Amino acid sequence: MTKVSSNTNAIHVFDGVSLALDGGGRLNQPQIAYSTHGTLNDARTNAVLVCHALTGDHYILGENPVTQKPGWWETMVGPGRPIDTDKYFVICQNVIGGCAGSSGPASINPETGKPYGLDFPVLTIADMVRAQELLIDVLGIPDLFCVIGGSMGGMQTLQWAAAHSDRVFSAIPIASAARHSSQNIAFHEVGRQAIMADPNWRGGAYYDHDEKPSKGLAVARMAAHVTYLSESALHRKFGRNLQDREALGYGFDADFQIESYLRHQGMSFVERFDANSYLYITRAMDYFDIAADHGNKLAKAFAGAKTRFCVVSFSSDWLFPTHESVNVVRALNAAGVDVSFVDIESDKGHDAFLLDEPEMFTTLRGFIDACALARGLGPIGDDT
Amino acid sequence: MTKVSSNTNAIHVFDGVSLALDGGGRLNQPQIAYSTHGTLNDARTNAVLVCHALTGDHYILGENPVTQKPGWWETMVGPGRPIDTDKYFVICQNVIGGCAGSSGPASINPETGKPYGLDFPVLTIADMVRAQELLIDVLGIPDLFCVIGGSMGGMQTLQWAAAHSDRVFSAIPIASAARHSSQNIAFHEVGRQAIMADPNWRGGAYYDHDEKPSKGLAVARMAAHVTYLSESALHRKFGRNLQDREALGYGFDADFQIESYLRHQGMSFVERFDANSYLYITRAMDYFDIAADHGNKLAKAFAGAKTRFCVVSFSSDWLFPTHESVNVVRALNAAGVDVSFVDIESDKGHDAFLLDEPEMFTTLRGFIDACALARGLGPIGDDT
Repeated sequence: MTKVSSNTNAIHVFDGVSLALDGGGRLNQPQIAYSTHGTLNDARTNAVLVCHALTGDHYILGENPVTQKPGWWETMVGPGRPIDTDKYFVICQNVIGGCAGSSGPASINPETGKPYGLDFPVLTIADMVRAQELLIDVLGIPDLFCVIGGSMGGMQTLQWAAAHSDRVFSAIPIASAARHSSQNIAFHEVGRQAIMADPNWRGGAYYDHDEKPSKGLAVARMAAHVTYLSESALHRKFGRNLQDREALGYGFDADFQIESYLRHQGMSFVERFDANSYLYITRAMDYFDIAADHGNKLAKAFAGAKTRFCVVSFSSDWLFPTHESVNVVRALNAAGVDVSFVDIESDKGHDAFLLDEPEMFTTLRGFIDACALARGLGPIGDDT
Repeated sequence: MTKVSSNTNAIHVFDGVSLALDGGGRLNQPQIAYSTHGTLNDARTNAVLVCHALTGDHYILGENPVTQKPGWWETMVGPGRPIDTDKYFVICQNVIGGCAGSSGPASINPETGKPYGLDFPVLTIADMVRAQELLIDVLGIPDLFCVIGGSMGGMQTLQWAAAHSDRVFSAIPIASAARHSSQNIAFHEVGRQAIMADPNWRGGAYYDHDEKPSKGLAVARMAAHVTYLSESALHRKFGRNLQDREALGYGFDADFQIESYLRHQGMSFVERFDANSYLYITRAMDYFDIAADHGNKLAKAFAGAKTRFCVVSFSSDWLFPTHESVNVVRALNAAGVDVSFVDIESDKGHDAFLLDEPEMFTTLRGFIDACALARGLGPIGDDT
């Protein structure tokens, strides 16, 4: 097998492959965009799969070529970071349904030569994981040392451990849940309705038109963005501060900093994200309910798993609240699975997993190092 | 003075009046739609002003002529109810800026003979209260026995007590706050952006067109509606239950009951509410910050007030959380004002004030009866 090495951004096209999907459809010739960092060891035992969130991509480290911003998880992944690229071979893959290079509704349908639009098949989180498994096979990795992710990335992590536990040595679901709650579905539905209300959406067939459903997508992003932050974080960051003015404007311009911030979030998002991808990925999250596949007994999903878990939640995360992580931990305990659980005191809300959270880094460094020892990867700095 | 009696729905036009507004504008010839229930006593000491919330109206009791549904506060107001119409003369007024009969952006601008649209002046909660005072004067009521309201109605209640405490014997702000928080502003801004993103909004000048910005307004309503319910209420009411189907549909129809419910909320709302009114009233709420008018010392706003307060919050209300009511209570205590405070254990979220909440009714019945005694109105059943 070839040595797989550092810092790749690549796209793999699975010619001749037809991926069967939960919804009954198939994804033909799936295309997977991914990045790797670090070096796969000879034993192929040091691979870490990072799973991204709803609007994420595979650019975890180094400049994102689309946004020219740093990778989204440089605090967590890199030389000397908790996921140490001097020691681990780190893979991150754009989910199918996405718009950063993997097959999604904006991709060309190989059967028609035109963009899929709504002909793209509806996906589940399990389908995304199946596509990840395809890539892991191509890379010649028998099993993953660790699967890790926050939010929807945590859903994928749980799905990996539930469906493929023999290929997952350790799993770190952060700020996540084993199912999407009614409130979560509600907020996603608001976003989808905002997109579909935009006349430029055209039933999803807007790719040939100059006008994209940008206004609807911006509203969807704004609504979602409020849910990523805690009330106290918003209060600390913005309070009722005015934007570039001394007094209230008595109009509908952005008087308050929070308004200006949200508008910016909406506008910058539409430059990098496809509205149909937003529909498909939110739908996949809504459908996520691991227990439903196991007679509504979440513990059954993890029965017999040898995977070691570290479950992380944040005290002020009201989108994926601590009690959802506690549910996962209870199920893992009931299944007799090895699990650590940390609820991190933070006022940063759901987005905390993307931010500078020293307690998260310390916790994960300890957990990952311990798993590495158990896996025979030796302490950090050893040449394995 | 004329005897003012039962069960009136009326509109009063203030000919020749020009109401000066906080934003520097004026509202000429304001028109006020209101309802009354019960009979004003000879001493004119038994008037209760009910203040409605963002999307409310003055139809508190009896069939709403627009929606053909029961009045929105029949649990609270009526014969034998905590606000007993056999004993009190109850007034509710559609706020200015609204769309149930009072002057608002859909009204005809007397200067142009055309609907105001965005020429309607931007309002504050204090402006709404000023318009209420005009009507109270017309009705010949020197001072109100009680001002009561939930959510934005609670804001008006606090504003009455802060600005006109000599005319308010007792005040009951429910599920409210003395200022709109950053998170609250954020959710309102999402709603406004959804409306303004609708091409049928036409910069607010849609009244002459058949097409109204209904899709944008529906999205705004859906986003807001999620914030009115608690996560646990949504879970209890809907969970992940499917709507009229046995299995997931793998599409973008409403698979889940919560989606179907939200879509219904959006669609029924646009039939009864004006999109521009939604912009103006949310803006007034965003601007609300009583302390800002008093050197950021909330206690100063209530200094010397003789009004008796009963402040009510709900434990699962995350839109106007308990700590906002606690802030009000602390300020009232600091100002040496008579205040009771009840945080009601409920899982119904912000909307609890509109629902069957026995502890709220018991609490308010006790408080109102005690105030009636202090006011010399005698126990219920007495002919005062």
